[in-house]
Amino acid sequence: MDSSNPFCNTDETQASLMRATYAALCKHGYANITIQRIGDEFPKSKSLIYQHYDSKDELLVAFLRGMIEHMETEVPVRNSTDARDQLETFLDRVFAPFDDERSEFMSAMIELRAQAAHSEAYRDHFTKSDRLFHAHIADIIQQGIDQGAFQKVDPDRTADYLQTMIDGAMLRRTTTDETVDITNVRHDIEEYMRWRLIDDDE
Amino acid sequence: MDSSNPFCNTDETQASLMRATYAALCKHGYANITIQRIGDEFPKSKSLIYQHYDSKDELLVAFLRGMIEHMETEVPVRNSTDARDQLETFLDRVFAPFDDERSEFMSAMIELRAQAAHSEAYRDHFTKSDRLFHAHIADIIQQGIDQGAFQKVDPDRTADYLQTMIDGAMLRRTTTDETVDITNVRHDIEEYMRWRLIDDDE
Repeated sequence: MDSSNPFCNTDETQASLMRATYAALCKHGYANITIQRIGDEFPKSKSLIYQHYDSKDELLVAFLRGMIEHMETEVPVRNSTDARDQLETFLDRVFAPFDDERSEFMSAMIELRAQAAHSEAYRDHFTKSDRLFHAHIADIIQQGIDQGAFQKVDPDRTADYLQTMIDGAMLRRTTTDETVDITNVRHDIEEYMRWRLIDDDE
Repeated sequence: MDSSNPFCNTDETQASLMRATYAALCKHGYANITIQRIGDEFPKSKSLIYQHYDSKDELLVAFLRGMIEHMETEVPVRNSTDARDQLETFLDRVFAPFDDERSEFMSAMIELRAQAAHSEAYRDHFTKSDRLFHAHIADIIQQGIDQGAFQKVDPDRTADYLQTMIDGAMLRRTTTDETVDITNVRHDIEEYMRWRLIDDDE
């Protein structure tokens, strides 16, 4: 990790700049965010930001990297909980209805993600975060198989399938006016999971 | 329809400007497209473009509207073909591997779609195009039920489910480096369809 990255210099500065970037993204979206506007949310010296980042994209990619690191420390690779519960909890969180703040942040995230269409730095990030998500889902499925709770499916393929649903729901929720009923999608995934992972008698 | 829209004035001018916009999107992506660059691909007088459009976004939204109109005339509401074949053909087309041109265009499309996160004009368009896609899938499913080829599912919900998969695959394919194996996703949707729509003995 680059030691000149202020997100990493001290926990406190890092957390503060993460919060400022998050707040500015929610408020302005990617289209209207500037380093100045991130600075407006940053309680410390703004020169710290300008010293380290030449562009808003450099800062935003560092923010995304910080999010991944946070996810990596938050998500335990293995734990003793029942795999079915783990998967339910994970899917409930991913498919939870958006409140206003979540809606604003996820809208900004889809804008950031679209930068990956032409920017290698963003593309690298979203490739990495997709793989991390994928590994997490596949790991839960493997645990379920080991626990005898799930059928012996291919964990990678089932994870791929679920992740594609998750990404599709996110894209539809952030870019259309209620063309998707997230409760229905969540329910249908539940049925899919039961068929695919749990029993044959559906 | 706005008669001052050159996409609609004459078929030839419309088709020519559509092609120019398509070519410029493939070449430059949304991030780097300008009216000037669209003009570079336009064989007719560039002043025609400048007369009608104040911004690239105005022109791009008109381009998207033209695409929908094209889709609406291309997709027959009902035809006599077997619904299973229709659905297979539709999904094969949607999940076909990208060649270079398709990849460039779909990357530009995801960038355009992300504009919907903050722009009402784009949001209106993608809401409309999602509904059109959805109606098309639901219609095929209803035909299959009428033909006795599909089980009596809720066509709208099944269409919602399929469309979410389609959008998710598109997002992953355009914004990551091969984290998704599209052939596997297509195969798994096939299995889902068989389970959900065709037989109970899976």
